[in-house]
Amino acid sequence: MNYPNGKKTAVKQWGNSKSTRTGYSNRGMTLEDDINATNEFYCDTGRGLIHKKPTPVQIVNVHYPKRSAAVITEAYFKQPSTTDYNGVYRSRHIDFEAKETKNKTSFPLANIHEHQMNHMESVIKQQGICFMILRFSTLDKTFYFPAELLLELWQDKIQGGKKSIPYDYVEKNGCLIPLGYQARIDYLSVIDQLYF
Amino acid sequence: MNYPNGKKTAVKQWGNSKSTRTGYSNRGMTLEDDINATNEFYCDTGRGLIHKKPTPVQIVNVHYPKRSAAVITEAYFKQPSTTDYNGVYRSRHIDFEAKETKNKTSFPLANIHEHQMNHMESVIKQQGICFMILRFSTLDKTFYFPAELLLELWQDKIQGGKKSIPYDYVEKNGCLIPLGYQARIDYLSVIDQLYF
Repeated sequence: MNYPNGKKTAVKQWGNSKSTRTGYSNRGMTLEDDINATNEFYCDTGRGLIHKKPTPVQIVNVHYPKRSAAVITEAYFKQPSTTDYNGVYRSRHIDFEAKETKNKTSFPLANIHEHQMNHMESVIKQQGICFMILRFSTLDKTFYFPAELLLELWQDKIQGGKKSIPYDYVEKNGCLIPLGYQARIDYLSVIDQLYF
Repeated sequence: MNYPNGKKTAVKQWGNSKSTRTGYSNRGMTLEDDINATNEFYCDTGRGLIHKKPTPVQIVNVHYPKRSAAVITEAYFKQPSTTDYNGVYRSRHIDFEAKETKNKTSFPLANIHEHQMNHMESVIKQQGICFMILRFSTLDKTFYFPAELLLELWQDKIQGGKKSIPYDYVEKNGCLIPLGYQARIDYLSVIDQLYF
């Protein structure tokens, strides 16, 4: 697995491998909450510009009452055809999916949809920076896992290979994301190391 | 106005300045239709990966009937906080807004919302490739107009300057986008010229 700057993947740990949060004020926060807060901090400080995409909805009926806003009265959730987050950092396109599992020993690949993998493959072809943020919530560990590797494992699975990614594999081939107060899930610092 | 490769803006015309479409099969197509078809072609051929973002919707009520899909029964349109299109091309982040006017002599800046301009400013700061695709539909001309220039004009407007961009200015400082059969609005060819 080669990165654009020639570095090989390796587990990188910034500072203490335990959470650098003091106290437990973030307890109960979902991964999505943490990422949204991180993105907001990145955006406010000009560090990067990454957004969650709106949930795709198929609108069927809209009511237009007089003197007030249009009301959507019938709509359905559509399956997303892309990843959930994208944006721009130091001129490069950033594209990622976030997944959480309570499983302590492995991450089930069934959590990822085929169209999301297809999208990630296309992003890689266009040399975007593409990855999955993967949280083992019971272990309280959050990893940066490169889409290139994910794609390999996915294709392997289709051909009858493993149906999940063992935790040890993630620990060895991903990067532990440092936690902080404001950039709670500071994934851009991982990207700095891998790409710049 | 300087581009990353040092080239100055100039009106560039590829091939015939008249539409290269033969016949009028596309008549009645909106700019959005044309851009979506172009993006699909780019995506299918691996040329680039650019998508329209889903319309942001505030979901208020969801009904979960037994044995069938969840139905959103009350939702409202939210003002988009970003541009409509983004993606990745040759490793760079692409971000743009598409606007159409029937006006023959100028484009009214009132068509652009403040939060969209703020977003564009942030994209520029992160060195993304940011622009507006601007169609003068009555004249059947579609231009690539750099966000950097748009921002200047917008700030000028706030300080009491012109409320619209004259057509001549767009023609002089933008780039006429070549039209084709499959890539109907071939804006990536303009980006090739300006950035690569």
